[in-house]
Amino acid sequence: MSREETRTRLLNAAMRLFHEQGFAATGVATILRDAGVNSGSLYHHFASKEDLLERVLDRYVDLLHPVVLDPVREREPDPVERVFALLAAYRQGLEATRCREGCPIGNLALEVSDSYPGVRPKIDLNFRNWIRGVASWLEQARGRFPETTAPDDLANLVLVVMEGGIMLSRARDSLEPFDRAVASLRDYFDRLQADRSGKENPR
Amino acid sequence: MSREETRTRLLNAAMRLFHEQGFAATGVATILRDAGVNSGSLYHHFASKEDLLERVLDRYVDLLHPVVLDPVREREPDPVERVFALLAAYRQGLEATRCREGCPIGNLALEVSDSYPGVRPKIDLNFRNWIRGVASWLEQARGRFPETTAPDDLANLVLVVMEGGIMLSRARDSLEPFDRAVASLRDYFDRLQADRSGKENPR
Repeated sequence: MSREETRTRLLNAAMRLFHEQGFAATGVATILRDAGVNSGSLYHHFASKEDLLERVLDRYVDLLHPVVLDPVREREPDPVERVFALLAAYRQGLEATRCREGCPIGNLALEVSDSYPGVRPKIDLNFRNWIRGVASWLEQARGRFPETTAPDDLANLVLVVMEGGIMLSRARDSLEPFDRAVASLRDYFDRLQADRSGKENPR
Repeated sequence: MSREETRTRLLNAAMRLFHEQGFAATGVATILRDAGVNSGSLYHHFASKEDLLERVLDRYVDLLHPVVLDPVREREPDPVERVFALLAAYRQGLEATRCREGCPIGNLALEVSDSYPGVRPKIDLNFRNWIRGVASWLEQARGRFPETTAPDDLANLVLVVMEGGIMLSRARDSLEPFDRAVASLRDYFDRLQADRSGKENPR
């Protein structure tokens, strides 16, 4: 196995295990076994488990556009509907895992923000880029929202609703809290857009 | 130390440590040391660390009204303002800990829902009771919202925004994402109320 292949296997295994089990609950031995590499080889590639976590978070930053945002952008031309198509994609993930696993970044945000403050900026970068991507879509639909509504405030709310909705659905073992929260968000978006069009066409 | 006192000390220590460090990262030895009780005494009182976690979650259920909801209800007579006073109380917690710790139930929801599915219903019960409490306030203000707006849908959204906002603020080490999300929620509430009053007093 090449040096590069070993490194990639370790990263893939850590990425999957941190998502499925959490960071603290995943031992280095499990990562090595899952990756199928020799024990001891972890520290040839990564200074520590925390260093491995940082590289996993770098990978998520790299994957955000090609894996998460671009496929939704390519299949949904309307920028507002695209936001809800993105939420529907997270819903599909919840459905496929029967409300397990959830968002890997959200899980790590709550689990390691205090215990490994060095990784906080990388978790935050994932969130910031997500918000920036969704805000850029909403920017395209700016004329449909009231002038006082900032696209990045709305995008912040969309991420908050996605993460909070996933949390409640995982606890309830049901898509219901997520669906309800998204329906409320949709109602807010509809009212914002109705308000704008109402002002342009005063009764 | 009485049997009852030992049990209470263990519960208090576990409650604090699970909140500060997480469940997996907290060892039984740390709980014993923190509680100042003899090693070995944990298993006289609790069948396992997971059993201790269940009792901690029972405690949170018991504390929800006297510690979280009632103080806000007593100081804010307006039922809608009370919802935002409750969010302000969580903000104060975030501020006091400099965006550390967050919501103990939210943390556990993401950390243990998959690995200890037996505790899921108790996490969910905490969320359900929170939503029910906030919905009962909004029920009192029902006449101020459109008839199609269900108080429990709104209360579900309030919890989702609170939990998602705390998550982003912990990752960013800043109150900003939480504040922004609450401002968006306030804008939604304002629009709902304006819609209702607009319909009663048609232009």
